[in-house]
Amino acid sequence: MTWRDGYIAVDWGTTNRRAWRVAADGSITQSFEDDLGLLAVPAGGFPAAAAAIRQRLGDHPMMLAGMVGSNRGWREAPYVPCPAGADALAAAVAWIEPERTGIVPGVCQRGEAGADVMRGEEVQVLGAVTLGQAPQDSLVCHPGTHAKWIQLQAGRIAHFRTTMTGEMFNLLKTHSILAPQLQGDVSPDDAGFSAGVAAAFAGENMLSDLFRIRARHLLGGSVGEPASYASGLLIGSEVCAAVAKAGGSAREVVLIGRPDLCALYEAALTTRGVSTRRIDGAQAFLAGIRLITEML
Amino acid sequence: MTWRDGYIAVDWGTTNRRAWRVAADGSITQSFEDDLGLLAVPAGGFPAAAAAIRQRLGDHPMMLAGMVGSNRGWREAPYVPCPAGADALAAAVAWIEPERTGIVPGVCQRGEAGADVMRGEEVQVLGAVTLGQAPQDSLVCHPGTHAKWIQLQAGRIAHFRTTMTGEMFNLLKTHSILAPQLQGDVSPDDAGFSAGVAAAFAGENMLSDLFRIRARHLLGGSVGEPASYASGLLIGSEVCAAVAKAGGSAREVVLIGRPDLCALYEAALTTRGVSTRRIDGAQAFLAGIRLITEML
Repeated sequence: MTWRDGYIAVDWGTTNRRAWRVAADGSITQSFEDDLGLLAVPAGGFPAAAAAIRQRLGDHPMMLAGMVGSNRGWREAPYVPCPAGADALAAAVAWIEPERTGIVPGVCQRGEAGADVMRGEEVQVLGAVTLGQAPQDSLVCHPGTHAKWIQLQAGRIAHFRTTMTGEMFNLLKTHSILAPQLQGDVSPDDAGFSAGVAAAFAGENMLSDLFRIRARHLLGGSVGEPASYASGLLIGSEVCAAVAKAGGSAREVVLIGRPDLCALYEAALTTRGVSTRRIDGAQAFLAGIRLITEML
Repeated sequence: MTWRDGYIAVDWGTTNRRAWRVAADGSITQSFEDDLGLLAVPAGGFPAAAAAIRQRLGDHPMMLAGMVGSNRGWREAPYVPCPAGADALAAAVAWIEPERTGIVPGVCQRGEAGADVMRGEEVQVLGAVTLGQAPQDSLVCHPGTHAKWIQLQAGRIAHFRTTMTGEMFNLLKTHSILAPQLQGDVSPDDAGFSAGVAAAFAGENMLSDLFRIRARHLLGGSVGEPASYASGLLIGSEVCAAVAKAGGSAREVVLIGRPDLCALYEAALTTRGVSTRRIDGAQAFLAGIRLITEML
């Protein structure tokens, strides 16, 4: 039984996981998604959790990626340094059981570009390249709790930058003085979102612009939905910095991730005069895992 | 019994309060400080709390300022709009009991300068001017949970800007993924603080630079104390925006507030080539209350 006869691919994150049975011809014959992320697996519980996946999807080789390879996961799969392609990831797979159960390593960056880490996004990004959906030298954005901006060069991850945008929005919504005003829905079509993006592009201090949400509440004014304004402000600041850093190469940004988040980034990027294309994350993940298994 | 015969001045905030007995000649004959801020006063408990202050400091007219005049305080003292001087504050004192117990209103800003509010800082700032410690046309910074940057023109509060710097640091330290790394002491002399200020002045995305704290932790590198780095980053961004906005008038910044916080701002401003002078907050508050009572 080898990888070419088919396998199981698992995207195992902190709070969720998603698993697919991939047939020899690359087609998906079965899959499931649940909330048994790292946080739901008891100490020492990973072997049993993996066995349960095989009970559902068959006794096949299994390749895992995501936070399952972190120091809080099943086993730490040490980061591969930038620039990194699929060959480097394949060579550094952490084997739980040789040729049978492996974990794809994350990617790290040191030195002048600044310390940074990713774990999980690398599979999607390299998968998007092999699918021909992300150009070999594109700028890819992966929105989320810790959004990633990944510069591809010749199809490899050249350098990248993480931004705590999603986490910051959640901190503000859950624990800050602004929380009561941030419980509404976020929409890229809301006047608040474009006002937030505009304030971000005006380039003042984000922490001042955020306080205006409270001031407007106390003074009785409003600029659209406050939650949309806060989101526009955070995403606008992120887009502004990422596009400035990428310079001329940022005429187009490839977006991979949750459709609702991609729509927000798309709106901010469009305002900035940058075109976008969206890629399905699951499809890209499966293509990335396939590429890695082919290089084993 | 009039204000000229002496009075009680109270700076009553959300978590703390401070009260002084001011004699007819302006000298302080008695004072105390405790943690009976707004949050510690039960519903309907303000009359009793004020009576208790008079039991300790004598049966004198009493002027209160700070969050005690907010909608979560004793009685809401509606904001006075910018530009605002001591005369406008005196004319808008909210009287609990005429000529006997009053609350100084806060100051608000609307229109093009952007919505903003303050409550408590206005007394200190105008007090600093009357003491001759803050020039009539200076830029004043009042660090804190919600730091204020106040532009004085002809001795009045012309416009101002609040930044959630202190609150953001506390959110990160208490609730974020960076929390484990942010429990150390913050010092302006730490290499982390100057690195954070430098990163802020380089003007990239604060939420990216913050994530580097986690990346450096995972990769085993470090740039001084992470808590100092985070503080330098937040304060550096704030200083950068405030100085840019003030333009040529920001050759000197007047700092009023907690000495430990003022030392951090002083370090960041000095790096920016801006000189500073520090003013004692309590002294400025007392001068401000005196000025207001003289205008009643």
